[in-house]
Amino acid sequence: MSALKEKIYEIIFKVDTPAGKAFDIVLIFTVILSVIFVMLESVESLNTQYPGVFQVAEWIFTILFSIELMLRLYSVEKKSKYLFSFYGIVDVLSIIPLYLTWMFPAASSFGIIRTFRILRIFRILKLNRYMNASNSLSDALYASRHKIIVFLGVTLTIVSTIGAIMYLIEGKAHGFTSIPKSIYWAIVTLTTVGYGDIVPQTVVGKALSSMLMIIGYGIIAVPTGLVSAEIVTKKLQENKKDHQCPQCHKSIHEQDANFCANCGQNLH
Amino acid sequence: MSALKEKIYEIIFKVDTPAGKAFDIVLIFTVILSVIFVMLESVESLNTQYPGVFQVAEWIFTILFSIELMLRLYSVEKKSKYLFSFYGIVDVLSIIPLYLTWMFPAASSFGIIRTFRILRIFRILKLNRYMNASNSLSDALYASRHKIIVFLGVTLTIVSTIGAIMYLIEGKAHGFTSIPKSIYWAIVTLTTVGYGDIVPQTVVGKALSSMLMIIGYGIIAVPTGLVSAEIVTKKLQENKKDHQCPQCHKSIHEQDANFCANCGQNLH
Amino acid sequence: MSALKEKIYEIIFKVDTPAGKAFDIVLIFTVILSVIFVMLESVESLNTQYPGVFQVAEWIFTILFSIELMLRLYSVEKKSKYLFSFYGIVDVLSIIPLYLTWMFPAASSFGIIRTFRILRIFRILKLNRYMNASNSLSDALYASRHKIIVFLGVTLTIVSTIGAIMYLIEGKAHGFTSIPKSIYWAIVTLTTVGYGDIVPQTVVGKALSSMLMIIGYGIIAVPTGLVSAEIVTKKLQENKKDHQCPQCHKSIHEQDANFCANCGQNLH
Amino acid sequence: MSALKEKIYEIIFKVDTPAGKAFDIVLIFTVILSVIFVMLESVESLNTQYPGVFQVAEWIFTILFSIELMLRLYSVEKKSKYLFSFYGIVDVLSIIPLYLTWMFPAASSFGIIRTFRILRIFRILKLNRYMNASNSLSDALYASRHKIIVFLGVTLTIVSTIGAIMYLIEGKAHGFTSIPKSIYWAIVTLTTVGYGDIVPQTVVGKALSSMLMIIGYGIIAVPTGLVSAEIVTKKLQENKKDHQCPQCHKSIHEQDANFCANCGQNLH
Repeated sequence: MSALKEKIYEIIFKVDTPAGKAFDIVLIFTVILSVIFVMLESVESLNTQYPGVFQVAEWIFTILFSIELMLRLYSVEKKSKYLFSFYGIVDVLSIIPLYLTWMFPAASSFGIIRTFRILRIFRILKLNRYMNASNSLSDALYASRHKIIVFLGVTLTIVSTIGAIMYLIEGKAHGFTSIPKSIYWAIVTLTTVGYGDIVPQTVVGKALSSMLMIIGYGIIAVPTGLVSAEIVTKKLQENKKDHQCPQCHKSIHEQDANFCANCGQNLH
Repeated sequence: MSALKEKIYEIIFKVDTPAGKAFDIVLIFTVILSVIFVMLESVESLNTQYPGVFQVAEWIFTILFSIELMLRLYSVEKKSKYLFSFYGIVDVLSIIPLYLTWMFPAASSFGIIRTFRILRIFRILKLNRYMNASNSLSDALYASRHKIIVFLGVTLTIVSTIGAIMYLIEGKAHGFTSIPKSIYWAIVTLTTVGYGDIVPQTVVGKALSSMLMIIGYGIIAVPTGLVSAEIVTKKLQENKKDHQCPQCHKSIHEQDANFCANCGQNLH
Repeated sequence: MSALKEKIYEIIFKVDTPAGKAFDIVLIFTVILSVIFVMLESVESLNTQYPGVFQVAEWIFTILFSIELMLRLYSVEKKSKYLFSFYGIVDVLSIIPLYLTWMFPAASSFGIIRTFRILRIFRILKLNRYMNASNSLSDALYASRHKIIVFLGVTLTIVSTIGAIMYLIEGKAHGFTSIPKSIYWAIVTLTTVGYGDIVPQTVVGKALSSMLMIIGYGIIAVPTGLVSAEIVTKKLQENKKDHQCPQCHKSIHEQDANFCANCGQNLH
Repeated sequence: MSALKEKIYEIIFKVDTPAGKAFDIVLIFTVILSVIFVMLESVESLNTQYPGVFQVAEWIFTILFSIELMLRLYSVEKKSKYLFSFYGIVDVLSIIPLYLTWMFPAASSFGIIRTFRILRIFRILKLNRYMNASNSLSDALYASRHKIIVFLGVTLTIVSTIGAIMYLIEGKAHGFTSIPKSIYWAIVTLTTVGYGDIVPQTVVGKALSSMLMIIGYGIIAVPTGLVSAEIVTKKLQENKKDHQCPQCHKSIHEQDANFCANCGQNLH
């Protein structure tokens, strides 16, 4: 019994055995397929043409994911801890809509929650090479967090101030009906999205917009520069002898170090 | 009396005591809340539904900020110097609109000035970690200023020249009614905003626009590269120290080196 | 006979002889010219005005490329291997549409395949300096592939999730007629393209869009940072050499160093 | 006589004397002012309101620039060489339109040429600090030229291929009336400009567009990375002891070099 439990745990939760890896890959494809079905179900023409298909597919996916969740809960030690972890919540949200709709037909609008299944594919990050990649990305973002907050603060101040001024300049007649809407316009412009649903129509408004566009075009350099700098310096450090000092355990050394800069130990 | 004054000064102006930090955080949230109220007041449907709410809220915020300003002026040594500093002016602009509207009801259009309250949140930059972050960002921008000016000059020349040519090619019938408007179009295009309120309609105009888009798409690399380069080189130099090794004469070491990484000589 | 074959091979396939280089340059211009003709043929006004011109030009290009393909097949050793290589397939696709239309007039819609001729200009990459350039670009992309996959995965999850939520918020009345269409809108917004064919119209929808725009504006920093980092670190390593100095044991020197930069020892 | 000529030459062409610098700054402001007048003249409402103003201003600017050009030609040694240099041509183009319109009233449409006056402000690049900045920018672009050509080639192939496919998929009914127009749409989309004047309307077209947008959003990283890399490596080399070796004249050394890596000379 315990051996079975362990075996299931290994297949479902681990990624370094062939069976565990195979399970993860099958799971990811099933998740993606189920999300595609949820998306296509919302296309009216498809839904009216093949109504049964989507309902049957949904039942199949829900039953598969229910079995998977039961096996996970069976094989894991701390069941409630898993249930309330990020993946546990996502797992429950993935299967509950259909059961709810079945019991209370009025609840069908919860169906959209099934889209969150897509979050399950992040299990893929357990795969080693993607783990490293995603770690180094999130490290770079984490290291720049204070600069990013300052940058976002400056950006929000710019869009608020220019949004308020444009509300005065252009006014309700030109679509700038309130300050929040003007700020929405300023964000659309600064980020260079430019829908064109609201556009300045006065000369002063166009001049101010041009300024905002050039600001937006220029300051994109700031987050890019920050992240680049973090990744470059991290990569350069990685290239430094990652040869741990046998005496003091310092692990990063200058690229051409012969001795440990910390304790003087010979590194060769 | 003087002790009270000093205590107030410490709470309001300093950031390194718990009370000072707490005051700053409360202040920032009050400022943000007051700005949100100013913005929502401009939404007609909300304003007609709850007219009293916004007026009352405005009086509360104005009184709070008036008390704060009085305490600041009371505790600071050089009162007039503070009043005419950046933050002093912003403080006065934050409270004056309501008093003006109260005295001269015709002055109500000055209300928009209250949006500038948002500039007060920059006091947050006194908080240490954001201070460093904002310094290193503004240093990077400052160090690249000549290159940025050259870049802006080239950009403005491109949009002026192409704007003037497009005015000739497309003409008034296609919305390019004057050179300044054509330049506005060129800026919308070069910065990749692309509202779509004015678009080229002739074949030659489309070809020239395509060229302008590709230029705009490519030259964004220049400011980004400049800022990245400044941040990267600054980060790389941060953990180096100058100190010549007495044995092998290596002259640059890691910031916290005790021994020479090249020959193992003790550096102390 | 064999000498002729070798000579042809040298001219057509090699790039380091004057004749080979000249042939490649002529070929590239012919390919570009033929693609321009295919494009202009699709312009109705030109096609009705000069109908004969395009047909004659097409025959000339097809015959030229047919002769070229025959010479290639004649001079190459492993004929079938060449035919099924990337360039072999492109070569055949470049000439076959006209023959097909000639034999089966109904097949004229295959004409578009001729546009793929443009892929033939990649032969230019054999030219040495472009070979190096394109290698170092594709190396940089290859080295960042896992990070790019993680980044694309996160991006797709964001657009799917926000697309599904917007489908609920805005609904069919505002143009978000299905989840796939909402996801299309989310991609248009996140990538800062912003056509404006579908735009949010509710307040909540606009707030969520603003958030998506700021995310899109910010995360562009990630791929840019990754590729920059790869190129920078590669460039920095390019002119270093490993060779330990016999006197002071410094182990990394400039590529063309004759003496140790640290202690002046002759390195030869 | 010769002293006067030399004095004029020094003021007009040199930039390192106070008089020369002052002349350049005055010149730049005059040029900018004259360009602004040309632009405003094209605004119909202004032109009909103050017709005399623009004509008078144009005469003043043309006479000023004519005097300047005559002084330049008087003081320079090789007059015809100057006339046919870049700045000589721009100088002539700046004044000729008015004389032409005066002599042949029918030539008034040449007036637009006056906009090219703006190119004269590039004389500012003679000012030392901007000279350095613009040199280092153009060096970075020059060093990456082969990579930029490869990148542009790949980009043009992508927009041509996808443009041709979209012409087939969407067809004339949806605004993709010819391959060149579809390529124009592909450029608008890839560069993230997104006017919205032509948008895909079929499901397949939207899917392909989404792919193109994500490609465009991602490959912007490539030119940015290239330029960043050039600027970073150049900056890092600049920081290396720019202390020329007294014996062999090698000018760039490792940051912590004590001896010249080329000839072994002691650098202290």
